[in-house]
Amino acid sequence: MTRDLRTLKSEAVGRAVGDVETPALILDVGAVERNVKKMARECRRLGTLLRPHIKVHKSPDIALMQLAAGAVGVTTATVWEARAMIEAGVADVLVANQVVPPAAIAELAELAAAASVSVAVDAAENIRSLSLAATRAGSQFGVLVEVDVGMGRGGARKPDETRDLAELAGELPGLHLRGLMGYEGHCMVEDDANAREQMASRAASILRDSVEHLRRAGIAVDVVSSGGTGTFEQTGALSFVTEIQAGSYTTMDVFHERMTDRFERALFVLGTVTSAHGREAVVDAGRKAISTDAAAPAAVGRNIEVIFANEEHLGLRVTAGDPFAIGDKVLLVPGYAPTAVNLYDAYLVVRDGTITDVWPIRSRYGTETIRLRSASAVTT
Amino acid sequence: MTRDLRTLKSEAVGRAVGDVETPALILDVGAVERNVKKMARECRRLGTLLRPHIKVHKSPDIALMQLAAGAVGVTTATVWEARAMIEAGVADVLVANQVVPPAAIAELAELAAAASVSVAVDAAENIRSLSLAATRAGSQFGVLVEVDVGMGRGGARKPDETRDLAELAGELPGLHLRGLMGYEGHCMVEDDANAREQMASRAASILRDSVEHLRRAGIAVDVVSSGGTGTFEQTGALSFVTEIQAGSYTTMDVFHERMTDRFERALFVLGTVTSAHGREAVVDAGRKAISTDAAAPAAVGRNIEVIFANEEHLGLRVTAGDPFAIGDKVLLVPGYAPTAVNLYDAYLVVRDGTITDVWPIRSRYGTETIRLRSASAVTT
Repeated sequence: MTRDLRTLKSEAVGRAVGDVETPALILDVGAVERNVKKMARECRRLGTLLRPHIKVHKSPDIALMQLAAGAVGVTTATVWEARAMIEAGVADVLVANQVVPPAAIAELAELAAAASVSVAVDAAENIRSLSLAATRAGSQFGVLVEVDVGMGRGGARKPDETRDLAELAGELPGLHLRGLMGYEGHCMVEDDANAREQMASRAASILRDSVEHLRRAGIAVDVVSSGGTGTFEQTGALSFVTEIQAGSYTTMDVFHERMTDRFERALFVLGTVTSAHGREAVVDAGRKAISTDAAAPAAVGRNIEVIFANEEHLGLRVTAGDPFAIGDKVLLVPGYAPTAVNLYDAYLVVRDGTITDVWPIRSRYGTETIRLRSASAVTT
Repeated sequence: MTRDLRTLKSEAVGRAVGDVETPALILDVGAVERNVKKMARECRRLGTLLRPHIKVHKSPDIALMQLAAGAVGVTTATVWEARAMIEAGVADVLVANQVVPPAAIAELAELAAAASVSVAVDAAENIRSLSLAATRAGSQFGVLVEVDVGMGRGGARKPDETRDLAELAGELPGLHLRGLMGYEGHCMVEDDANAREQMASRAASILRDSVEHLRRAGIAVDVVSSGGTGTFEQTGALSFVTEIQAGSYTTMDVFHERMTDRFERALFVLGTVTSAHGREAVVDAGRKAISTDAAAPAAVGRNIEVIFANEEHLGLRVTAGDPFAIGDKVLLVPGYAPTAVNLYDAYLVVRDGTITDVWPIRSRYGTETIRLRSASAVTT
């Protein structure tokens, strides 16, 4: 029988982390709290608001902690993440992507009756669909026109296009034009700090030009939403940027450690050595248990390199120190937290070596998110 | 509120696949049935038994279909997969990996009281732990000594080591030595058919030498388990190999299409175009919705190349034919089925364009699998 979260919680709370078998996802809640408070302080110092991206942790519990520390709302990647947050009591959500499937638009319009919901747009037909859905639901969407600041993904690619979309969003019923969004995600994959700073500067100038272009056209731009954990200091210091969307600072991972040392490791996957040959070892935390897609995992307190990552096996080579023995537990740091978290439906929440709670991970794909088109879905 | 599988089923069954919103995991059950029957025929023709690896689909429903077509049992990667299969009525399970965490060993010993359970071993201390756990549970493990046939992962690396492990497994209580296992997984990543055949031949000769070494030492080798979808014809034709562990033939994926054209595509992820710029388009099926870790996805009926894969965005470039428009649905073939399936907790089961069922995907990591060490766990 599948267990439910309540059963796991009753078994786990109060137990020592040393009793945890593998693989398991472990959250050091003290480190999360310190990271959340530190980023809140940093944003106050920079004079920017913070709207943390919750795609990193998919956790209503962590989101509420971020709001308690002063975040102005949350950023989500999907409608389903927005639903999970609003159900948990989050009052202000930005879906920082284009929402296109009709059932998703209709559902977001319903959610917008219960909370402040903004959404990113980059096409006129999508703006019209959002307007129709909000009008039908008797709700209102905040709208941020997405500007492509060099990532080449979503977003308007020319200032006049940005202006036309903003004007349309400003005119249609059910919509409230709030401003612009530009995400310099392409900068996060640049390891070199100087090169990353230059890329972020170019991205910032594209976003600044768009803001000025709209203002010259007489369009109010109240919100400019941008920035990630790898660029928050630079982007947060820009006078025209009003809020930062960073999220990875909450848990950190190997990928983001390359860019900033200001935050602590708070997320771990526990594995067990299942085979050992000299300095090489196999751990039971493969690609189905830990993310290897943006960076290789690290091991706490050990000098290792990852030599392969199969579905259920992570191959390690010890580069300094004692070799592993069969049965050794290994505390791994995910290469990329968002995709590691997405492999589990629950965190074991640990404080001072004891499991204090089990927190759900929400809005992964499947029964929670799959929708059939309803007769009431709005299509244009 | 999170939905449960029953609710999704009540909403989905009887609806047209055209009503499915995105992202969603779709199983063409007719194609699965044809693949299952075809592989059963192929194995009969080759004179080998079939013990399909269910890590590919993690579906009790598909496993029962494979058994009905003549499979001798199933292969699993983990104890949790074995539990899901045995709970569904599968009577014969091989866990084709080393099981080391004490709670996992204890649980497998309990499962072995309800079904025939075999497990792969490559270390003496692990064999002793299994013996103690089976004895304590009053059950028995079948044991296959894993031979490293060139993959460099688990498995004994020298014939004498293989023989010593087999002798130990043959002597200890609670264990029944059944034979050897060798998985030529390193051959599956070789695209060139000739090179793959040569690699598989070298792997086969290592396995054959091990079988002969044991038999010369007077050790019975009843079972030799080996082979995957990329090598089944070659490995299945070997006289000393008694069973084939192939699994990917069930669903297929881009990765396995490179190796065999004998089976049909049966697994799909449905996406929607959310942004479009000329010949480039963004689809709402990123790394959290489709596997990109062993091969890039393909699109049914379209000529595309994947230009990026973010968490929630798949960037496509159309290489021939009409460009995509915002709102277009795209039927994607996962690059690698096992890790794509692992992102969802349910399949929409489709026959002739209509959803006929919703099948659970079991034993993903989290509440179903996390265990705390119990006082009764056996440690050596």
